[in-house]
Amino acid sequence: MTFKSDIEIAQEAKPQVINEIAEKLNINPEYVENYGKYKAKIDYNILSQMKDKPDAKLILVTAINPTPAGEGKTTTTVGLGDALSYIGKKTVIALREPSLGPVFGVKGGAAGGGYAQVIPMEDINLHFTGDLHAIGAANNLIAAMLDNHIYQGNELDIDVRRITWKRCLDMNDRQLRFLVNGLGGKANGVPREDGFDITVASEIMAILCLSNDLEDLKKRVEKIIIGYNRKGEPVTAGDIKAQGAVAALLKDALKPNLVQTLEHTPAFIHGGPFANIAHGCNSVMATKMAMKLGDYVVTEAGFGADLGAEKFVDIKCRLSGLKPNAVVIVATVRALKSHGGVAKADLNQENLEALKKGVPNLLKHVENVTQNYGLPAVVAINRFPTDTEAELMFIEEECKKLGVNVALSEVWGKGGAGGVKLAEEVLKLIDKGDNNFKFVYDVNLPVKEKIKAIATKIYGAEGVDFVGSSTQDIENIEKIGYGNLPICMAKTQYSLSDDPKKLGRPEGFRISIRAAKVSAGAGFIVALTGDIMTLPGLPKVPAAEKIDVDNTGKISGLF
Amino acid sequence: MTFKSDIEIAQEAKPQVINEIAEKLNINPEYVENYGKYKAKIDYNILSQMKDKPDAKLILVTAINPTPAGEGKTTTTVGLGDALSYIGKKTVIALREPSLGPVFGVKGGAAGGGYAQVIPMEDINLHFTGDLHAIGAANNLIAAMLDNHIYQGNELDIDVRRITWKRCLDMNDRQLRFLVNGLGGKANGVPREDGFDITVASEIMAILCLSNDLEDLKKRVEKIIIGYNRKGEPVTAGDIKAQGAVAALLKDALKPNLVQTLEHTPAFIHGGPFANIAHGCNSVMATKMAMKLGDYVVTEAGFGADLGAEKFVDIKCRLSGLKPNAVVIVATVRALKSHGGVAKADLNQENLEALKKGVPNLLKHVENVTQNYGLPAVVAINRFPTDTEAELMFIEEECKKLGVNVALSEVWGKGGAGGVKLAEEVLKLIDKGDNNFKFVYDVNLPVKEKIKAIATKIYGAEGVDFVGSSTQDIENIEKIGYGNLPICMAKTQYSLSDDPKKLGRPEGFRISIRAAKVSAGAGFIVALTGDIMTLPGLPKVPAAEKIDVDNTGKISGLF
Repeated sequence: MTFKSDIEIAQEAKPQVINEIAEKLNINPEYVENYGKYKAKIDYNILSQMKDKPDAKLILVTAINPTPAGEGKTTTTVGLGDALSYIGKKTVIALREPSLGPVFGVKGGAAGGGYAQVIPMEDINLHFTGDLHAIGAANNLIAAMLDNHIYQGNELDIDVRRITWKRCLDMNDRQLRFLVNGLGGKANGVPREDGFDITVASEIMAILCLSNDLEDLKKRVEKIIIGYNRKGEPVTAGDIKAQGAVAALLKDALKPNLVQTLEHTPAFIHGGPFANIAHGCNSVMATKMAMKLGDYVVTEAGFGADLGAEKFVDIKCRLSGLKPNAVVIVATVRALKSHGGVAKADLNQENLEALKKGVPNLLKHVENVTQNYGLPAVVAINRFPTDTEAELMFIEEECKKLGVNVALSEVWGKGGAGGVKLAEEVLKLIDKGDNNFKFVYDVNLPVKEKIKAIATKIYGAEGVDFVGSSTQDIENIEKIGYGNLPICMAKTQYSLSDDPKKLGRPEGFRISIRAAKVSAGAGFIVALTGDIMTLPGLPKVPAAEKIDVDNTGKISGLF
Repeated sequence: MTFKSDIEIAQEAKPQVINEIAEKLNINPEYVENYGKYKAKIDYNILSQMKDKPDAKLILVTAINPTPAGEGKTTTTVGLGDALSYIGKKTVIALREPSLGPVFGVKGGAAGGGYAQVIPMEDINLHFTGDLHAIGAANNLIAAMLDNHIYQGNELDIDVRRITWKRCLDMNDRQLRFLVNGLGGKANGVPREDGFDITVASEIMAILCLSNDLEDLKKRVEKIIIGYNRKGEPVTAGDIKAQGAVAALLKDALKPNLVQTLEHTPAFIHGGPFANIAHGCNSVMATKMAMKLGDYVVTEAGFGADLGAEKFVDIKCRLSGLKPNAVVIVATVRALKSHGGVAKADLNQENLEALKKGVPNLLKHVENVTQNYGLPAVVAINRFPTDTEAELMFIEEECKKLGVNVALSEVWGKGGAGGVKLAEEVLKLIDKGDNNFKFVYDVNLPVKEKIKAIATKIYGAEGVDFVGSSTQDIENIEKIGYGNLPICMAKTQYSLSDDPKKLGRPEGFRISIRAAKVSAGAGFIVALTGDIMTLPGLPKVPAAEKIDVDNTGKISGLF
C-alpha cells in the first residue's frame, strides 16, 4: 500500500476562493485583504464592530511530551475542526504559522498532515503573507538603531558587553549563533560580541502574539529591554525611539491570516512564537477574531501540556482574558511506547509492558489539565494501523480512572469524518460545563515562588534549585519593577523534568534554574533550565536539497 | 506658501481598486493575484498567452550625474507616464522597487514625489509584496547551506578564506559589514571572516531582474559562484544543490507587481538591484509584460546616464533583446549649478557662470545617448520656481547645438498635465524613428578592452589603469570561461570619472580598476573602481525615529 504525500494530497484539493470562506463567516468584504486567491488578511478594525457579539466556545488541543514517534497535534487540531464542521457546527481553527527554518532543515511542516491539512500548504510553509519577514525586519531595525546609537556617540552610555537584543533571520543557520561584528575599523561600527536568533524566537514575535491592538503593540515595543547602560540600568527600545517605525513595519503582520482546510473549514494561521523562550501559541488577535466569527474555535499550544498548555493558561489566557471550554490531549500508542523506552524501529510491535511504563506521561498531563488548570478534558488517540485493541483498551482504562474519556481519531486518513467521535466527546464536555478554570500561580507571588509552583504542580518536581546567575537575575528583575509578570519556562519539551532523557512520568527529580531574563515588552519572565538553542542548524542532508519548482510555479519535494 | 508632503498627497488620493487597473489593461482576472486592494502580482504564465501581441514603444528615463540638489528622475518617469495617459496614450510605467534600508535612513523614498507618485506609497516603501524579503531568504539559504556543507565535512573542499557569498539584510546596518562568525566551539559552525550586504546588492536580486522565466532563474542560480575550493576552482550554488529551493522561494517574487499612479496610470514596480555592483534596472519580466499590455512603456535606470543607462543598454537590453525607442535625460537648473560648483544653500540664486560650468555634464550624457547608444533623446528640465528664464534659455541653446530639444516638466506640482510638452516631444522622437541603437562594445572582446570602451567612450577618460588585483582577477575570470560576459561598472555615481569630487565634465582623467569579479548567475563581470559600499549605515538621526502608525494602521512621518 502506498500513501500519497502531504503535498500531493494538498495539490489535488479544490480550494474555495478565500472570499467565499470569508463570506461564510459573514465578514464584511471591506475587511478582507486578499493575498492571492486563497489567502487573506482580515483587518483588525473589524474587531471594534463585533464587540457585542457572543464569543465562541474555545477548545485547546495539547499533547503528551513529544517523542521521535510524533503525536500529530496539529493534524488532530485541523481534523477536529473539520469534524465539528462535518457535524454542522460553525467552526474556526486558530493555528501558529510555520518558520522557514525547519522547512529547509528536516522534513516536516506545520500545516497538518494527510487529509487533515490547511492549504495552500506550500505558501503557508514558505513566505505565507510575509509576517515572519516583517517581524525579522522589525527586530533588525531595533538592532541597527541600537548599534547606530552607539556608533554615533552612545549618548545613553550603553554597555556593549551587556546588550541583550540580538539580530534574527528566519533560517536554520548555526554559523550565526556566536559572532563578533563591528570589525573593519572606525567607519564600520564598534566591535562587540553578538549573535542571531531564529525569527520566531524574537521577542517581537511574542509581542505580536500577545498584543490586543496596534497601540498596545507599540507600547509593548517601547518597553523592550535591549541592554543595560554602564550604571546597570535597563535601556529600552523606547529610549532609542524605535517603537513607531517598528509598529509601522508590523501594521499588516498584526492582521490575522485566513486560509482553509482541505474540507473548507476556515482557519486563522497567525503568529508562531518559540514554545520554550516564548509562549508558543498563535496570536491573541487571531483567537479573539475567530471567537467572534464562529461558534466553536479549535486552537493548539506548542509542545506538551507541561509547556504549551501551561503557558496558554498562565500567559496567553491571563494576559488576554480568554478562557478555554475544553481541552483535547493528543497521544499515540507509538509515542506512549516510546515513553516506555521502546526504540523507534520496534514501535510497530504490540508491547503492553512498555505502554504501562509510558502511559503515566499521559496521565500526568491529564491530571494537570483537569486538576491544575481545572478544565474538562478528553484524550485523543491519533490512531495508527499497527495499534492493537489491547493497547488501546489499556489506555482507555487508565484514563477512565481519572474520569477522562478516550476518543480514537482517524483524521489523518479520513479527514473530518474520522474525527466525529472526538468532536462529539468535546461537545459533550462543553455542554456539561464542568469548568473550574484557574491559573497555576498568583502572579503577585515572588518570582521564585511562581517558578516553584509550576515545577512542583505541573512537572511533578520535588523542588527547584536556583543555580548559575538565576538568583541575581531574579533579584534584578524584581528590582527594576518586573517581578509581577507571569513566568515563561524554557525547558526541554521531551520530558516533564529538565532532563530530556527522563521519559514517562519521572519522579523524585528537582528542576535547576540556571538563569532568568525579562521580556518586558511581551510581558513575561523567562526562566531558563539550561542552554536553549535559539538558532537551529541544518542537518547533514537538508530538506532544501530536494525542494524544487517547475516553470509554471508548481512546487515539489516540500514534504 | 506651504507644500503638502508626499505622504499627505498620497493619502488624500482616491485609488482605483487594482482589479480595475488590471481590467483596463485587458489582463484576464485569472492571472491577477491581489495583495490587498491596491496591489497585485501578475502571473508570468500570462506571457506565453501574449507572445504574438506587438510590443509597446519603450521610453527610457535617465539623468545627469546626481547631486545633493536632486534631479527628480523617478518623479519625471511617473509624471511622463501620467502625461502620456493624459493625452490618450495607453501607457504603462515600469519602475524599480525600493529597499527598506534608505527608508529608515535618510528621508527619501523611491515612489516619485508631489503629484507624480505611485501609490500606495507606504506599502511600496515598506514591505510591498515581500519581494525583497524573499530575495533575502533565498540569498541566506545559500549561505546557510554553504556553511552547513563545510560544517558537515566539507566534501567540496571549500576554502573558508575564499568564500565570496555573503549573507544579506534589507537594512542599513554598518555593524554587519565585517564580522567573524562560526564562533562558540565545535557545535556552532566553523570560524571564518564574513559580512553582510544590503539585500538589493545580492546577486539574487540581479538574477531576478534578468531572468526570462522561472526555469531561466533556476539555471542562473545554479551558476552562482559562492567561493573557491582549495585548488582555486569555483564552487557554485548548484554544487551545494541550492537552486531548486531558491527558485521555490522566489516563485512569487518573480511575478511583476502592479500598482497605479495618483492619476491611475498602471505601473509595474518590480526588482531593484544596486546600480553600481549590479545593473540598476527593474526586472526584464516587468518591462516585457508592460510592453505587451500597453502601447507606451516608460521606464528608468539607476543613477546617471553613464552608469544606469549604459547598463540598461549593454546589460539589460543585450541580455533580453529589448530596444528603447526614445530616451529622456532629466536635469534641474539647480543640479547643473551644483555641477558648476555652487553650494546647496546658494542654489536659489541665478548664476549663469556656474551653469556654464555645470551644463557640460548634461551635454556629455546627451552625446552618449545620441552618439554612443544611437538613440533619439530629449532633455527634461524638472522645473523649480527659482529657475530663471535666462538659465533655462542657456540650457536650451546648448542642447540645440547637439540637435536635442529641451522640454520643461512640471509634473511634481501639476501631475500629468505638467508633463504634456515632454510627452509630445517624446512622441515626436518616436514617430520620427531616428534610431540607430547600438551597444558600447562587442561582448566578445577581451575583458580589459570592454572596460576601456566604456571608460573612454562613455566617461570621457583618457585611459584605464588596472591596479590592485584587477589584472589577476580578470585573468581568472577569462580562465574559468566567463570572459565573454558584459561589464557592470562599479563606479561613483557623482562624477563621470571615478572621483566623486570631479563634477561637471571632467577631462584628462584616467579610470583605475582595482578589482573584478564575475556574477556568473546574473551574467556580468563587475569591474570595481574603488571600495563600493554594499551595506549603508544609518545617519545620526535616522528617519525611523519620526515614523509612526496610529491604531487604525495609518502611517505618518514616512517622508
